[in-house]
Amino acid sequence: MSNQWIVGVDLGGTTTKLAFITMDGEIVYKWEISTDNSNEGQFITSNIEKAINEKLNDLGQTKAKLLGIGMGAPGPVDYETGTILNAVNLGWKDNFPLKESLEASTSLKAAVENDANCAALGEMWKGAGNGAKDLVCVTLGTGVGGGVIANGNIIQGINGAAGEIGHITVIPFDGAPCNCGKTGCLETVASATGIVRLAMGELKKAESTGELRALLVKNGKVTAKDVFDTARNGDELAQQVLNEVSFHLGFVTANIANTLNPEKIVLGGGVSKAGDILLDSVKEYFAKFAFSAVRKSTQLALATLGNDAGVLGAAWLIKNKLNQ
Amino acid sequence: MSNQWIVGVDLGGTTTKLAFITMDGEIVYKWEISTDNSNEGQFITSNIEKAINEKLNDLGQTKAKLLGIGMGAPGPVDYETGTILNAVNLGWKDNFPLKESLEASTSLKAAVENDANCAALGEMWKGAGNGAKDLVCVTLGTGVGGGVIANGNIIQGINGAAGEIGHITVIPFDGAPCNCGKTGCLETVASATGIVRLAMGELKKAESTGELRALLVKNGKVTAKDVFDTARNGDELAQQVLNEVSFHLGFVTANIANTLNPEKIVLGGGVSKAGDILLDSVKEYFAKFAFSAVRKSTQLALATLGNDAGVLGAAWLIKNKLNQ
Repeated sequence: MSNQWIVGVDLGGTTTKLAFITMDGEIVYKWEISTDNSNEGQFITSNIEKAINEKLNDLGQTKAKLLGIGMGAPGPVDYETGTILNAVNLGWKDNFPLKESLEASTSLKAAVENDANCAALGEMWKGAGNGAKDLVCVTLGTGVGGGVIANGNIIQGINGAAGEIGHITVIPFDGAPCNCGKTGCLETVASATGIVRLAMGELKKAESTGELRALLVKNGKVTAKDVFDTARNGDELAQQVLNEVSFHLGFVTANIANTLNPEKIVLGGGVSKAGDILLDSVKEYFAKFAFSAVRKSTQLALATLGNDAGVLGAAWLIKNKLNQ
Repeated sequence: MSNQWIVGVDLGGTTTKLAFITMDGEIVYKWEISTDNSNEGQFITSNIEKAINEKLNDLGQTKAKLLGIGMGAPGPVDYETGTILNAVNLGWKDNFPLKESLEASTSLKAAVENDANCAALGEMWKGAGNGAKDLVCVTLGTGVGGGVIANGNIIQGINGAAGEIGHITVIPFDGAPCNCGKTGCLETVASATGIVRLAMGELKKAESTGELRALLVKNGKVTAKDVFDTARNGDELAQQVLNEVSFHLGFVTANIANTLNPEKIVLGGGVSKAGDILLDSVKEYFAKFAFSAVRKSTQLALATLGNDAGVLGAAWLIKNKLNQ
């Protein structure tokens, strides 16, 4: 078993990431294929099978090299049955039996989990978590997702809706509308989209000046990256936006930590590439809102695996099954 | 094993509750002794041993009837080692080896857990949780405590500080000081003490009138129970306080549910005896702040076991060990 590989798959609406990964979590080979979601997604798993066989051929290996296939999928997953409850972007009907379909296509033992949860498992295994068995990941991308790991396992929740950290309310009254139907969710102020919205709110004020303002005039828009870059350069308006984002992230992460006291809370996703300027600012508010015994023991950290977190976490699902 | 008993113990600073409990969670016999915390607490476990032997004698039984002893203790506990890290009220020095001491005194297999966690386990086993394996308990007493159960086990946290739900921040700025050193914690607005504080804040206003005001004039003080009783009678000021308490409890429970999506969140402790007037009001805010898939699946309920939750949860610790 020690020289065999696990296939880790991170399934997205447009691109599918694949990797051969050792039982120690080393990525031997990784590549991408486009996701063909036509005809109700009927080609998705067979394309994956084809891609795996071609790559094995290229590498002079056979299927005997593979221990199983783990997949992160973009939607709520029932882990026990391997069903994806709802995946509009992939063409599948509701309650698609993804694990079964993968096993039929590939003749490999399969396991399926929500993609945000896979990213959390990846960070636990090989990233910022560094083996921590109690870990919470907050993924700051176009939206805000999350994964909660306790005793080394993902918490699913009774309806598969655990880890909806992006929909924790941070502004109880008169918050901005969220895609989920509520208002004032963390996602409305800490996603890339939310950060731009906050910045635009400030920039629309007649008296606004500075570098971020100049970027808006020049490009006709600003990005979340612009906000962090100009804040780093000392732009006051950008620093004010950064402060607001950090306040909300510190509030939420501290309150999660007061509830779960995990070893680590990891900030990942595109927004987390802002790096220490974001982390340090979030840490200040975390310290303000965390209970003393929690403040001393739960660490905030940046994710370290980037795009590899998903395939690694997916592979971990199989490793975990084999170890049971 | 089926006709044997487990000893459940709920250790308090002044009173120790004991019960003989079947493997099915039926309380066969329960009684109390006073806690003697003199001489650095050196009599506590031997007094428990004595009390058990006397009761066995009274009931015409011998120690062979007993499967083990589980205890809930008022302080942070390291479950693996059975050490109580800190228990000022009991006279013990820091890091007292409670499990070891219990086993030495009683010659029974012992297990020790924090008392708020035991109450949560009791509610899971025989109370409002009704067997739910994912459950959060919020205990609203003089302070506010909590216990988080995932996959049937208590989440301890890296420093034993998981479940500090009373110290979740609900008022980020200019909140009232909390005993923990922070400000604006849930405990400052949802404990019995906090509710009285909120009520007194309203009653001090010159224009205040009504039944609660009359009780203050008559008794020189009001209690949390007075607030709920007069709110039930339609007193506007009391209803305003109830609304504020419920808003904060709804906000916190919804955000916990957005993170964990447990089957149930159970409100217990003395304040929860207010009953439906509190529960219904909290449910309204919970619905406002919970993510849709969470709102549909996580239930809010009142605790049902009262003072028996602790001894039942303590006994469950032994049952769980025997089943492993």
